Amino acid sequence: MPENPMPTARTRVVRQADRGVYDREAVYQILDEGLICHIGFVVDGQPFVIPTSYGRKGASLYVHGSAASRMLRRLKEGVPVCITVTLLDGLVLARSAFNHSMNYRSVVILGKAIPVDDPEEKRAAMRVLAEHILPGRWDDARQPNERELKATSVLRVPIEEFSAKVRSGPPIDDRGDYSFPTWAGVLPLEMKWGAAIDDPHLEPGTVVPRYVENYSRKR
Amino acid sequence: MPENPMPTARTRVVRQADRGVYDREAVYQILDEGLICHIGFVVDGQPFVIPTSYGRKGASLYVHGSAASRMLRRLKEGVPVCITVTLLDGLVLARSAFNHSMNYRSVVILGKAIPVDDPEEKRAAMRVLAEHILPGRWDDARQPNERELKATSVLRVPIEEFSAKVRSGPPIDDRGDYSFPTWAGVLPLEMKWGAAIDDPHLEPGTVVPRYVENYSRKR
Repeated sequence: MPENPMPTARTRVVRQADRGVYDREAVYQILDEGLICHIGFVVDGQPFVIPTSYGRKGASLYVHGSAASRMLRRLKEGVPVCITVTLLDGLVLARSAFNHSMNYRSVVILGKAIPVDDPEEKRAAMRVLAEHILPGRWDDARQPNERELKATSVLRVPIEEFSAKVRSGPPIDDRGDYSFPTWAGVLPLEMKWGAAIDDPHLEPGTVVPRYVENYSRKR
Repeated sequence: MPENPMPTARTRVVRQADRGVYDREAVYQILDEGLICHIGFVVDGQPFVIPTSYGRKGASLYVHGSAASRMLRRLKEGVPVCITVTLLDGLVLARSAFNHSMNYRSVVILGKAIPVDDPEEKRAAMRVLAEHILPGRWDDARQPNERELKATSVLRVPIEEFSAKVRSGPPIDDRGDYSFPTWAGVLPLEMKWGAAIDDPHLEPGTVVPRYVENYSRKR
């Protein structure tokens, strides 16, 4: 586990500095609750921001994709990346338009991606990626064969330079606005998982597993 | 309204090309349902990806923030940006680990931000930003004063170079896996809005407005 040199000048939260979080465990908790990240990388001076799934183990974040993907091929070159995970927790409605906000938890990681080429390490990382999304699924699924392993690129981004930004709680209105006659408060947002939908090709009698039925991102 | 030259080489969906969407109205529908975007920009070769709220009017996407924010000051220089909006619709559970996926709708916009400095245009854009999040709120809130207008930077990004990528429906397993004895299907994800939480400073008798109580992102 690397030491925590956080924040650097690049990851310090300057605006609303009280929302900055640099504690590694608090950052991991946000990463472990999230389902997708947005990866930023640069091609010919143009930034691209692409959503993708990820997984975390220790101080490593893993992403994967088709070996033929432009993004994966670019990232494998070791270019600087930014990986951002955002959880939206609610709308914050102040009396003044100006003081409206959102409650959220976000993590920004700066670094470079390292290809995971060793077959055993790659298989282990794919398990981490699968289990991040749905714990229990890996052992229940048909395992990747040689062709599939070859068609998949896996990359590891060390979680070394990072910060989180967190807002929670009620709106912060100017005191002079307290008597303004409009409702103020928070409208909380949650993830709601619907009833599982069977694949049309499902063999009769195959039941929804418990790890799907009881699914939740709360960790 | 600019003509639609989509896709360009930079926005064409190459991997799983059948998921590419270039129709302007379809892209607007995704943008109008989303609550936050991730903005990518580059500083000294390092990409940054920052979550923020946005609003759309016609072929313009607006973002705003503190005039003192590093991001806003950087964007105002007219640097290339990438704005990505992602809606996650569900987990796609295939029989094979390899064919797992997610259902999602995402939009990528490439361009440059233009500062909105004209006071009337700026006020109108701030209304667009507020109404994007919560229709009905702007007229109900205390309007921005001169100091607040000055403290806010508003930027416009023309929606000119863009694409969307959409996956929906059941898993696509290899035919040979149909008999593999694990459940397959889709676990749908929705946004769930909880009961509104009163601000602790709320004047007694102030009731939750109907536009908050009946809030939904479905457009």
